[in-house]
Amino acid sequence: MELPRGYRLSAVACGLKRDPATLDLAVILSDRPAMAAGVYTTNQVVAAPVQLDRQRTPSADVRAVVVNSGNANACTGRQGWTDAVRMASCVAESCGCLPEQVLVMSTGIIGHPLDMRKIEPGIARAVSTLAASRDAVSAVARAFMTTDTVPKMAHRSVLSGGQTWQFLGFAKGAGMIAPQMATMLGLVLTDAPLESGWGQTLLQEVANDTFNAISVDGHMSTNDSLLLLANGAASAGGPTTEDRQAIRTALEVVCQELALAIVRDGEGATHCIEIRVTGLESNVQARQVAREIANSPLVKTAVAGADPNWGRIVSAAGYAGVPLDLACTTLRLNGSLLFAAGEPVGFDANEVSRGMRASAEVCLELCCGSGPGKARFWTCDLTAEYVRINADYHT
Amino acid sequence: MELPRGYRLSAVACGLKRDPATLDLAVILSDRPAMAAGVYTTNQVVAAPVQLDRQRTPSADVRAVVVNSGNANACTGRQGWTDAVRMASCVAESCGCLPEQVLVMSTGIIGHPLDMRKIEPGIARAVSTLAASRDAVSAVARAFMTTDTVPKMAHRSVLSGGQTWQFLGFAKGAGMIAPQMATMLGLVLTDAPLESGWGQTLLQEVANDTFNAISVDGHMSTNDSLLLLANGAASAGGPTTEDRQAIRTALEVVCQELALAIVRDGEGATHCIEIRVTGLESNVQARQVAREIANSPLVKTAVAGADPNWGRIVSAAGYAGVPLDLACTTLRLNGSLLFAAGEPVGFDANEVSRGMRASAEVCLELCCGSGPGKARFWTCDLTAEYVRINADYHT
Repeated sequence: MELPRGYRLSAVACGLKRDPATLDLAVILSDRPAMAAGVYTTNQVVAAPVQLDRQRTPSADVRAVVVNSGNANACTGRQGWTDAVRMASCVAESCGCLPEQVLVMSTGIIGHPLDMRKIEPGIARAVSTLAASRDAVSAVARAFMTTDTVPKMAHRSVLSGGQTWQFLGFAKGAGMIAPQMATMLGLVLTDAPLESGWGQTLLQEVANDTFNAISVDGHMSTNDSLLLLANGAASAGGPTTEDRQAIRTALEVVCQELALAIVRDGEGATHCIEIRVTGLESNVQARQVAREIANSPLVKTAVAGADPNWGRIVSAAGYAGVPLDLACTTLRLNGSLLFAAGEPVGFDANEVSRGMRASAEVCLELCCGSGPGKARFWTCDLTAEYVRINADYHT
Repeated sequence: MELPRGYRLSAVACGLKRDPATLDLAVILSDRPAMAAGVYTTNQVVAAPVQLDRQRTPSADVRAVVVNSGNANACTGRQGWTDAVRMASCVAESCGCLPEQVLVMSTGIIGHPLDMRKIEPGIARAVSTLAASRDAVSAVARAFMTTDTVPKMAHRSVLSGGQTWQFLGFAKGAGMIAPQMATMLGLVLTDAPLESGWGQTLLQEVANDTFNAISVDGHMSTNDSLLLLANGAASAGGPTTEDRQAIRTALEVVCQELALAIVRDGEGATHCIEIRVTGLESNVQARQVAREIANSPLVKTAVAGADPNWGRIVSAAGYAGVPLDLACTTLRLNGSLLFAAGEPVGFDANEVSRGMRASAEVCLELCCGSGPGKARFWTCDLTAEYVRINADYHT
């Protein structure tokens, strides 16, 4: 893995998590101004760092990102805002840039003020150990984690017009919001050249098909953020049309890999479920149907039990608020036809169930007619372990 | 309990359920034409009996209702429609009324054709044993059940202008749709006088505040139906304005009691959660916020764990798509203030948790400002037992 040029990274343990040796604070610094784009939660209850980053992106002039886990700085009122601003200022002071050139991401418990007496020295320590090394990358990925069981990284190289660009992505998340912890964060660094206007549009489009097409429990977080930094350090000039296509593909692949890593690490999950809906009038309709299927606890528990329970899937599609012609609807599960033209279809339920039990991936394909609208959506199954994780945690 | 006059009832075991001795078929006959109103699922995937009843209500001329459990007659194609029509015809032949005067309700497994060789003789047997007795009422309530752990009945007498009217309600449901079983059915019988126009409006209004204000798992069924029969057997003439108010109140109380019985019997549930939202611009907005809180698995698991996790509740309100001013928002749980004016509030979490553990009822009150919009909504908590019930069931 080659790092994107012009970035240095560092992560430290500053004591925000229960185990004081666990990494919980990361700083990422670009040696030159980077284009920065951001996509954020649409929850109206938003954390202070999200409010700050919204004001500061898109931008053509960002130098650093500071990330902490263990505390989301959400629902923390005016103090929360002051602390988020202070985090950026601390980084700016240590790095010799302007406070406005720094973005902030926080994830963890809701409703508790940040302990700035731990964060401020933590930032100073992190900045003093910035490095362009694989160890630093690995440490940053771990500093993102809350209830995640594995760190989440993705990397791609792109060759376009004789230039090679690196895309390096980090993410965290296991519940969209978990035991007052978790929430989704994503950060992609690249040395490719992107203008802030196109970068913002691109990031929003890619996010819609990746991070916005996954669900663990349907509970939208106060902190969800996806940031893209592009410093152009590996480029002589602006991107050509061909370059743009290469950049888009690389960003899609990295974001897709990170988004699926979140679903696979969904709290208590034993299956990753891919839902493909086709044949509706529009992509928006198809997405809506896919989302309702993904969020049904009855569909999710059926998959956990390796039960090809097509009635639950078809009935979830029926309440998505989208016109549905059952007579033109077919459903396949891992390729097996379960339902066609409004009627049940004879199939070997035991064999389909065995297939579900044997694999951690389940694919549902619902074809609703001959329209052009289609969507893909990913979720995980719902197990007793999810309930245990989220019922046994205490504030 | 006094029965509404002019009705006879019966229930038999005709062999639709695994245990052939379990009651699974009920017939209710009015000795004179009754006003009939119906409120049905808005799922676009609807069972054949729902399609039939939709055509036949509202009506001023219904004589009988036939109900079966064990098979929902949903997603059964043309055969399902033929069977639903045939069920009504069998009742009509046995009772000496017209097929169009009969309504049909089915609940149970999805996607399997009804076994009419069991149902037809079952109807004949049920009609031959019709009676106006408490034993018959109790048997009918049991014949409604699928995954329900208790039969669900409610009864009220109303005295208005010197006349006494009886309201007798039945319901079933434990998941909105459960292991390809369950779905919500409700039936209210009264000897009060109602015209079909007003009866339909009244039933829809009452349903909105009762059966449509509950959720177990947010999965809308293909069979949800609520029927009201009013035969006027205890009345000399049409209702006065005062009578109407008395009738509305009685119907509300009966439907509310049945709806809460469903939530309390929610699959795996250990707590009934009442959600009161106030201070928004409209009742529709308040309902939307209450519904999102009710459907969040993170809120539901927190209650299961007796965790006063206000961050999950406030953040669920934040993604309801309703404008929310956090600075004017307060949250109480069982009367204790947890969050006010955008800031966390100091409270004794252990004491609040002890209170949650000690009672099967939890009340959440979210005040979002000074607007007139308000709503009440009920749900149950989410436990590992819900997952077990729904993951371990196999088609």
